Amino acid sequence: MTRTHPYDSGLEKNEANFVALSPLSFIERSAGVYPDRTAIIYGSRLQTWRDTYVRCRRLASALTQRSVGVGDTVAVMLPNVPAMFEAHFGVPMIGAVLNTLNTRLDAEAIAFALQHGEAKVLLTDREFAGVIEKALAMLGGRRPFVIEVEDEDAPAGKSLGDVSYESFLAQGAPDFAWQLPADEWNAIALNYTSGTTGNPKGVVTHHRGAYLNAVSNVVTWAMPLHPVYLWTLPMFHCNGWCFPWTMALQAGTSVCLRKVDTALIFDLIREHRVTHLCGAPIIYGMLINAPEAQRVGIAHPVNGLIAGSAPPAAIIEGCERIGIAITHVYGLTEVYGPAAVCAQQEDWAGLPIGERARLNARQGVAYPMQQAIAVLDPATLQPVPADGETMGEIFFRGNLVMKGYLKNALATEEAFAGGWFHTGDLAVMHADGYVKIKDRSKDVIISGGENISSVEVEEVLYRHPAVLAAAVVAKPDPKWGEVAAAFVELIDGATANEAEIIEHCRSEMARFKVPKQVIFGVLPKTSTGKIQKFVLREQLHSASAIA
Amino acid sequence: MTRTHPYDSGLEKNEANFVALSPLSFIERSAGVYPDRTAIIYGSRLQTWRDTYVRCRRLASALTQRSVGVGDTVAVMLPNVPAMFEAHFGVPMIGAVLNTLNTRLDAEAIAFALQHGEAKVLLTDREFAGVIEKALAMLGGRRPFVIEVEDEDAPAGKSLGDVSYESFLAQGAPDFAWQLPADEWNAIALNYTSGTTGNPKGVVTHHRGAYLNAVSNVVTWAMPLHPVYLWTLPMFHCNGWCFPWTMALQAGTSVCLRKVDTALIFDLIREHRVTHLCGAPIIYGMLINAPEAQRVGIAHPVNGLIAGSAPPAAIIEGCERIGIAITHVYGLTEVYGPAAVCAQQEDWAGLPIGERARLNARQGVAYPMQQAIAVLDPATLQPVPADGETMGEIFFRGNLVMKGYLKNALATEEAFAGGWFHTGDLAVMHADGYVKIKDRSKDVIISGGENISSVEVEEVLYRHPAVLAAAVVAKPDPKWGEVAAAFVELIDGATANEAEIIEHCRSEMARFKVPKQVIFGVLPKTSTGKIQKFVLREQLHSASAIA
Repeated sequence: MTRTHPYDSGLEKNEANFVALSPLSFIERSAGVYPDRTAIIYGSRLQTWRDTYVRCRRLASALTQRSVGVGDTVAVMLPNVPAMFEAHFGVPMIGAVLNTLNTRLDAEAIAFALQHGEAKVLLTDREFAGVIEKALAMLGGRRPFVIEVEDEDAPAGKSLGDVSYESFLAQGAPDFAWQLPADEWNAIALNYTSGTTGNPKGVVTHHRGAYLNAVSNVVTWAMPLHPVYLWTLPMFHCNGWCFPWTMALQAGTSVCLRKVDTALIFDLIREHRVTHLCGAPIIYGMLINAPEAQRVGIAHPVNGLIAGSAPPAAIIEGCERIGIAITHVYGLTEVYGPAAVCAQQEDWAGLPIGERARLNARQGVAYPMQQAIAVLDPATLQPVPADGETMGEIFFRGNLVMKGYLKNALATEEAFAGGWFHTGDLAVMHADGYVKIKDRSKDVIISGGENISSVEVEEVLYRHPAVLAAAVVAKPDPKWGEVAAAFVELIDGATANEAEIIEHCRSEMARFKVPKQVIFGVLPKTSTGKIQKFVLREQLHSASAIA
Repeated sequence: MTRTHPYDSGLEKNEANFVALSPLSFIERSAGVYPDRTAIIYGSRLQTWRDTYVRCRRLASALTQRSVGVGDTVAVMLPNVPAMFEAHFGVPMIGAVLNTLNTRLDAEAIAFALQHGEAKVLLTDREFAGVIEKALAMLGGRRPFVIEVEDEDAPAGKSLGDVSYESFLAQGAPDFAWQLPADEWNAIALNYTSGTTGNPKGVVTHHRGAYLNAVSNVVTWAMPLHPVYLWTLPMFHCNGWCFPWTMALQAGTSVCLRKVDTALIFDLIREHRVTHLCGAPIIYGMLINAPEAQRVGIAHPVNGLIAGSAPPAAIIEGCERIGIAITHVYGLTEVYGPAAVCAQQEDWAGLPIGERARLNARQGVAYPMQQAIAVLDPATLQPVPADGETMGEIFFRGNLVMKGYLKNALATEEAFAGGWFHTGDLAVMHADGYVKIKDRSKDVIISGGENISSVEVEEVLYRHPAVLAAAVVAKPDPKWGEVAAAFVELIDGATANEAEIIEHCRSEMARFKVPKQVIFGVLPKTSTGKIQKFVLREQLHSASAIA
């Protein structure tokens, strides 16, 4: 017999009490409440929230006139310029899906994304005319409608749009009556992951998750109203970790820039009193190592989120020295960018830098709006002991997890097997509930029956004052099966030889973990800046390179 | 022909990527990430987030053992003590619905709520033994199971629980495996509105809205991590405006207190470095007018949300003087407490106090997580012109609107007619998009064909230095139809006579609006502190008293 309760009836959803969660609500509110505040700065151009909202509505309207609508893909191949920001609102306003393309990819990869994602429209920039022209040629007759975003600061290049962005906007209605999505589960963005092997997978995210991650950024970072955010992180990475939408929520100012250049960055920080920025450790490394003269006159505090790989002590210490307060976050495209944070405890502040760096280098705990991060035995999906030693795989669960991979049921099923999202990253769980990555799945080195975590060795290498970047891979060895080999890229002007590097490692780790070989040079990286270990393995004829 | 899109299939919800929104997630996270931080301070008692979470799980577990479950009501009649805070988590953890009772109500009203809400369990405090005993007697055989929360600071009184709270908790499992709600639309709380006439209505709210309003509090207030929150606002008012859940989100500290007493409040602010508090203008008035000696030694900034009625200039100015930064919010039980905020613009700071007070006294704009606040013509539901003059009714729409009224389909239907929630408050829309209440629906005075807003006259009265509280109602008048009559309560020790008050009004408003009569004395208030204008109208034999 089913019990009935007083709450069972008469309390249904209706238009007054239920609205789809969508970050598009934020721009409407900021344009209404703070219309005259600056939304975007780009060079000498200042654009208010009122004008930005109007431009986004024009974009939505003009797209509608081209029969773009719910479930259609609009691709963009753009640097961090205002149009890139606007596309994050104008495209989803009509239920279309924004596919931001990694501007470092080659024509084949771009063509794959345009074809697989079925893009009906492409926004692009003169800088990428060469790649785009080739990619479009590969598509044959089914090419998207191309809109060229004019930018006098773009390098010289061929113009290949069917129409210019400004002309296109001019066709749209400034008061276009866009709609929230009919369902907050509807797709908002498509992001292709740059796998090192195989075809990229198209990560599809939804309005609900984008809304919640935009909010989570604010809560995690205790971000005040009206932050001034510098776009050092490409917006094509997981929609800039959802920060276009976070800026709309906080009525902040986005300082746009085409490329990362330390002199320009410090100029912008100084001139616009930038309060927040994001990036991989390499960005912070560049800022730390930039000539001191570039930083003159900057006295206000700057906050930085850092992700991509764990920040080495030198980065944390260096950032403190130049006045950037670092928060380490962790995530991947499938979880909207960062979905975990190394939440700092008050008593860490008093610890020595080495200990502080060790604690902050951990991937941490779930974002406030993510339900869970866990380290599970991938075979049983049971949690590993929180002993800081037992390896398991990192899993996520919650509203900050993608809908799935586009037109790839098998990969989607694998990714969600057992009701958790599988990251493929190997980690341990510390006693305080903080996750610490030990290795990417394929990066374990097994030497004489002992596991060596390449990340652990890399962290030691990063602590050497001359090291800019380091990667450790397995090298086949007749005696031990595998040994660790280190590839090292030195800081400009710094010097170190193999013996010095090995001696440095010996002083900091067990003998069996110490690299037996050190190779110097520029490290091969993927278009997203990840070090391509498979290239290094091939170079060593490593067995695992075959996998 | 229906178009199909690549996003139409293979991207469904599953356990990995979809979780119900519920503020219960927040306590699990804070207990995990900040277990040793203080969640609750009450007198000399300090309780960590770890212990608080355990106690909430015990409560949930013990309730389950009494067959309380999804859709059952648990009522609480408690002051702002730790058990009241814990009930906000322990009760919904099992899908039960928390009904916080207004401790100022009489036995009849309590009996009505217990009966109408079908409470299976009641938590109470010795202080209310008299009222509760009478209320239970009225219920006859169908009385709830009563749990008495022990408190050595409670006034002497009869003990009438079936069990003590601590014994009850001891029966529960500390590691009870509670569940998030199966549906985020499920009820989380029931709050009876204290209507001035007729039976109270039971406002039912849901997990999704409680989650979003708890977050909205953080965003609106730019609240940092680990706030220290003083419970000057009763938790029985709209679940303390969702702040128990906000505190869990921010791993803050709740400083509990049984009653509002200025010496105690300043002691607690000083000792615990309180950063945030909430309340009606009367609370701030008391703090401003308290002996200066009570405030000695408090130098840190304190933030205050103010709602209930618009803060008069004297309150805003007084708060500035004693170091409380005020933010004016607006809402009602049906929208989870505050759901609009008078968002301060940076350029207001430089204005003279009178102008600043005028701007800050407005009800403002929608909360970031509320979709809309609007001033509409109630007949057509079309927006009134944003001219600051045309009166309309305030409506809300969005996720911070209740599910409806319990077992009251007619009232629910009326409240949501036309797809908006009807507040019954009359207002104008200013050119900058800020709402300004002009009157509660029944409080318009029509004098010689001209409308007088009683709120407007009251605001002028509040500016008089001797006035503590004021209410203006219509008085029948043979010549003008109605005239304004003022009821005034003076600050302790202050003096003013009718002529002085009238002269003060004349200097600040059009002649026809000036009250023709001033009556001095303590104003009659509802149990929630609202001035009972209908009592005043009856006193004047006002025609509108009949309505």
